[in-house]
Amino acid sequence: MISTTDRPADQSLPPGSLMAAEIAEQPAAWRRLLTDGAAAGLEAAAALIRERAPRMVLFAARGTSDHAALYAKYLVEIEHGLAAGLVSPSTMTAYDARPDLRDVLMIGVSQSGGSPDLVRSLDVARAGGALTVAVTNNPGSPLAAAAHVHVDVLAGPERAVAATKSYTSQLLALHLLWDRVRGGNGGMAAALPDLGDSLLARDHEVAALAGRYRFAQRMLTTGRGYSYPTAREAALKLMETAYVSAQAFSGADLMHGPLALVEPQVPVFAVVAEGIGGTAMEPVLAGLAERSADVCCVGRPDAVAGAAVGFTLPSGTPEQLSPLLEIIPFQMLARHVAVDRGGDPDAPRGLRKVTETL
Amino acid sequence: MISTTDRPADQSLPPGSLMAAEIAEQPAAWRRLLTDGAAAGLEAAAALIRERAPRMVLFAARGTSDHAALYAKYLVEIEHGLAAGLVSPSTMTAYDARPDLRDVLMIGVSQSGGSPDLVRSLDVARAGGALTVAVTNNPGSPLAAAAHVHVDVLAGPERAVAATKSYTSQLLALHLLWDRVRGGNGGMAAALPDLGDSLLARDHEVAALAGRYRFAQRMLTTGRGYSYPTAREAALKLMETAYVSAQAFSGADLMHGPLALVEPQVPVFAVVAEGIGGTAMEPVLAGLAERSADVCCVGRPDAVAGAAVGFTLPSGTPEQLSPLLEIIPFQMLARHVAVDRGGDPDAPRGLRKVTETL
Repeated sequence: MISTTDRPADQSLPPGSLMAAEIAEQPAAWRRLLTDGAAAGLEAAAALIRERAPRMVLFAARGTSDHAALYAKYLVEIEHGLAAGLVSPSTMTAYDARPDLRDVLMIGVSQSGGSPDLVRSLDVARAGGALTVAVTNNPGSPLAAAAHVHVDVLAGPERAVAATKSYTSQLLALHLLWDRVRGGNGGMAAALPDLGDSLLARDHEVAALAGRYRFAQRMLTTGRGYSYPTAREAALKLMETAYVSAQAFSGADLMHGPLALVEPQVPVFAVVAEGIGGTAMEPVLAGLAERSADVCCVGRPDAVAGAAVGFTLPSGTPEQLSPLLEIIPFQMLARHVAVDRGGDPDAPRGLRKVTETL
Repeated sequence: MISTTDRPADQSLPPGSLMAAEIAEQPAAWRRLLTDGAAAGLEAAAALIRERAPRMVLFAARGTSDHAALYAKYLVEIEHGLAAGLVSPSTMTAYDARPDLRDVLMIGVSQSGGSPDLVRSLDVARAGGALTVAVTNNPGSPLAAAAHVHVDVLAGPERAVAATKSYTSQLLALHLLWDRVRGGNGGMAAALPDLGDSLLARDHEVAALAGRYRFAQRMLTTGRGYSYPTAREAALKLMETAYVSAQAFSGADLMHGPLALVEPQVPVFAVVAEGIGGTAMEPVLAGLAERSADVCCVGRPDAVAGAAVGFTLPSGTPEQLSPLLEIIPFQMLARHVAVDRGGDPDAPRGLRKVTETL
């Protein structure tokens, strides 16, 4: 069963006001999480993970939160050398699978913490022997109650239907959680809020860029490694606010078929951050150039310089934290394109804030 | 690094001839696998899996083979109660992760068995303690050599760039492998080749349907559970042969954002098979109807009757085998739409048969 909870946007505000405000709140939300880690439950969750020493990590999430889970999957695989996977919740709900999950950690990620299929997945995982952690924006939510331990992303109430601040706060919470599992103190992320502020001050750049995509019906987004979740989330924002058919591919998968879609009339957004993922994008950029693609590059100055248009990200950010910054120009772009087209990204057609799927 | 190996289609044949021939070969390929299971390596692989009794299964694959892997992930989670995941190959190649994979089974799936990143993933997994199985269409391939044991899908040489028969042979090989792990004899699949023949005889129905999509630039595909891989593979076929921006969503994920894309001008293909996945699609169909979607339903007669257009699948097929049949009308549709538009699905622009990503 799928039902929805309505929470209409305030009709008195100009379209996109809520989304703009929540995009702008991100650095402040990150500062909260960086200073109130204990209150957020990060210490308790990290201690439990260290104690149980899981052999494998599964993530359960939907929509935007699924992209935060995908980010954390890369973190766990690369930084912790653990096997990791994204569960298909329907196996434990509709199909009633009862897996043996001893030595497994299951992390449920959800803004609202209200999706019944995720609650059920954590219940089943716990009954099957897994350690369960919920990462939500609502400590009073059913998902928080279902897990052994809850991490609050402390993003504050999110009212726009298109999730923005809750996404980057999920990324940061997941980074800080795993950093603490390794005995870190979160110091690597200290510079992020100021860098976020510097990006927000460049909204006019994105507004100018948005005009270029005013009439685009189709778009492709691509990235590799830690930046692949950014490509996925960017495509979802563009779909749900501007109603563009935006498709995301890992750079490697793009070469396996979807490259046939690339033609100069279909804009491509490539995320090319500093680090290994960005380096691995270089042959993808060459393949796109061979097909005369119109590429907008977000990331490294040299990659931006080689593209039709672009948005340069500040240098020096560790690759595993770059996704918090990378998504911001895409959030701003989705909002501008949506508003330019007469839409209201605070309340996209056909969508509500809490989606309940079983 | 990404490079490609060219294998051009025979210029003397009409466009789509190779693809048509390979679509038509599927029932014969399935019969081969059903009768030559021992020669395919199924017994040896199943015995090794039973002996090692892995606690978790990881799949490594790209493109069409990734959809076969996704199908097997559902099989393993639902029928075997094991935790399962799809690896991001870049973590073990570009990022050089060296995970501890004791008690893990890694299955690499690839038509050619030639993708260097998959070979590397299996090498790393094996060094990390995993049992490794390769499922390919080429027993002499590097991937076959890298694994502890190889399963040959016995599809015969595949020359069209768009994979068709190798996909359903992968599905069948993965089903038969896990059936044997449980002590089965493959009997459940015995009726499939004849059912496949009956679908192939209905190519004229699909040809008529293709006219309806002659000018569609965007499409959505959706399914749940075992039919979700069908939705993914259908979208890839339409993308790589007909250059349509086709996007696949699980029915549940569709409700989390992408539903905003749905409007009467964007055709939706819904896979609604008999069984639990099809039942779980009912609220999704209701949501699509609310948005006045133009739905083409592939599957149950009642669901087809409720849609704008559709293609009825034979009843009585066990749900976990239905994906072999479900994809056939989509393969035929992609070919017809591509040819109608003046393309050549045997050799789509920008693509070659073996894609090598590192």
